[in-house]
Amino acid sequence: MPRAPHFSPGLSAIGGSVFSALAHRLATYRGEIYPLHVGDTWLEPVDGCRMEDLLAADNPDMHRYSPPRGLRLLSEAIAERSQRRTGVATDARDVLVTAGATGGLGAVMGAILEPGDEVLVLAPYWPLILGIVRCFHAEPVIVPIFGEGTTASAIVTRLAQALSPRTAALYVSTPNNPTGRVLPREWLEAIVEFARRERLWVASDEVYEDYVYRGEHVWCRALAPELTFSVHSFSKAFGMAGNRCGYVIGPTSAMDELCKISTHSCYATPTASQLVALRALDGRGDRWIDDVRERYRAVGEAAAVALGLAPPEGGTFLFADASAALDERGLTGFLADCADRGLFLAPGPSFGPFPTHVRLCFTSAPPEVIGRGVAVLAERLARRARY
Amino acid sequence: MPRAPHFSPGLSAIGGSVFSALAHRLATYRGEIYPLHVGDTWLEPVDGCRMEDLLAADNPDMHRYSPPRGLRLLSEAIAERSQRRTGVATDARDVLVTAGATGGLGAVMGAILEPGDEVLVLAPYWPLILGIVRCFHAEPVIVPIFGEGTTASAIVTRLAQALSPRTAALYVSTPNNPTGRVLPREWLEAIVEFARRERLWVASDEVYEDYVYRGEHVWCRALAPELTFSVHSFSKAFGMAGNRCGYVIGPTSAMDELCKISTHSCYATPTASQLVALRALDGRGDRWIDDVRERYRAVGEAAAVALGLAPPEGGTFLFADASAALDERGLTGFLADCADRGLFLAPGPSFGPFPTHVRLCFTSAPPEVIGRGVAVLAERLARRARY
Repeated sequence: MPRAPHFSPGLSAIGGSVFSALAHRLATYRGEIYPLHVGDTWLEPVDGCRMEDLLAADNPDMHRYSPPRGLRLLSEAIAERSQRRTGVATDARDVLVTAGATGGLGAVMGAILEPGDEVLVLAPYWPLILGIVRCFHAEPVIVPIFGEGTTASAIVTRLAQALSPRTAALYVSTPNNPTGRVLPREWLEAIVEFARRERLWVASDEVYEDYVYRGEHVWCRALAPELTFSVHSFSKAFGMAGNRCGYVIGPTSAMDELCKISTHSCYATPTASQLVALRALDGRGDRWIDDVRERYRAVGEAAAVALGLAPPEGGTFLFADASAALDERGLTGFLADCADRGLFLAPGPSFGPFPTHVRLCFTSAPPEVIGRGVAVLAERLARRARY
Repeated sequence: MPRAPHFSPGLSAIGGSVFSALAHRLATYRGEIYPLHVGDTWLEPVDGCRMEDLLAADNPDMHRYSPPRGLRLLSEAIAERSQRRTGVATDARDVLVTAGATGGLGAVMGAILEPGDEVLVLAPYWPLILGIVRCFHAEPVIVPIFGEGTTASAIVTRLAQALSPRTAALYVSTPNNPTGRVLPREWLEAIVEFARRERLWVASDEVYEDYVYRGEHVWCRALAPELTFSVHSFSKAFGMAGNRCGYVIGPTSAMDELCKISTHSCYATPTASQLVALRALDGRGDRWIDDVRERYRAVGEAAAVALGLAPPEGGTFLFADASAALDERGLTGFLADCADRGLFLAPGPSFGPFPTHVRLCFTSAPPEVIGRGVAVLAERLARRARY
């Protein structure tokens, strides 16, 4: 055992922050900063859903513990909205309110994994999923699915090749972070059918479900409610990432098991965060989303045009291959050069086997700031490496 | 592996809610309720430290992500206060802001435990510690330390008997939940010396450090800063349990490892919760505590007198042996009879091998409500079992 001063050897496979190499430069840069490395929004939450709108006099229990499963009214509102959108019968017992989607995926993985188990992680992926799996002493197995000529049957072939007797689940994200792609229905149907055949749980990361600009979002739970945990986020939907409120919807019989993990991770989601989330679900949040979606779409499309990329189908990211602009210092040098101009990007390797890509978030600063940051990137990408 | 629809077998050892058996009665009871089963406070946080006091206009990033380690200003304020109180040199790098003390203990256990490791849990203990250890596939080993004639050397003997090659850490809580005892300095010195000799990490749960009515609180970190993780809570100190903000202080070199766990559990502590915590540390919170401590003391002492118990030395709980009042239905019947009168208590077995005890919180409702609930309990305890 790892007696003091040693730590769990299993942790060594978990990286530190994706952005730690850039943190020093970010703190010391003097000019205008283009923080395109973080996934966040420049917008404040809709009026009525800010912390200052929660009066203690109107909410006498707002500084006290919430039930571990979440406030009953919030679980009910989530279930009602989910059923309306997905067509899947859903009630409050199928919902676990969590500390963001991060807490939700932690609850899922903690509930289903034993040490040594494996999770098929469809790549590119949201970076933290690897560490979440490893926290429970299980192993992520990376399965790239995007690329030229990808088909549903090619994805299933790759999944089958990666399967082992220890495989317990697969993780998929749509709209996809970092690519901005919305997974086509036929891909998701093939992935879910594979999971059903192999008796794998499906962890479906749908935190950008409300930001689809092209095509349709397919709710994974509608394809296989008996084995899907869909993970959602008030952070991304309603611009309240700092509140740490998200949720998981899954089979009724599973939710007590998930709740064991979340109860022992943070006891309950912050009460005030749940109360503003509940307010967002009374209609005003959906009206805000309808407006914000068009604003996100406009800034995302403008960024794609400036960078010569296909427009985003959903989400708040673009994923660009910088290979033509790299010199002998590789991606690290490219990111450093960008940082020297105030532009911060997330490195491709954080999202899978993408050694020459960068991810940018086009909603993390006001559109005019994004525009100037994207112009810096476009200029850097246009420089051909000199060798 | 636990393929769908199965779950991690390791979870089966983790119980559901301590209070789930009472939840139905609580929801349906019609008369005045005495909710003495929860550990919370009837007070609102000090003025200026409620959510409505955080204006978005003054805090432009308050709905956005905090850094995973915590807001820099908060970490610095915590370190400064801790150094002032404990005399141990402390800076912001020694602090991890967490989702309550629950998140703090999760980060500690996740960072130090491998599957199969053991943690010596000094009993009686805070119930969730068992599940936190088990979430990481390690085993709690319960070591009762309270009781007639307990001495420092007797505690060390029991710890030595419970030690195994798999022991990685020990967990101790002072002021103690559920007993209301403040651990004497010589006990803690002996426990920490044992840990040092055996190279065990020490997880010291000190969330009630500010509520000591008799004796002195000994900061475990002052005894062995190189192997102690002390866990603290804004919930308990400042009456903001719903905010889910606490912190761990430990060796500088360890904190990156702990942060890996908390980042993958909830990403970061809610930003608004950290902002009100920071406000509480500007002096007004300590003045609030000085006032509240006397109010808690008064209600705790009155409850102890009514129940014929020794007065609480610290914390917000009393732990009463109901054995003389049990009938053939045992503790379950006793708790049910109490619930039939609106009185809800936590069962002794949740805190260790205490089959006939009940725990009551004397701060979970206004003092006059507590007084009436305690009167119900005193009356029930005075009934001798009829057989």
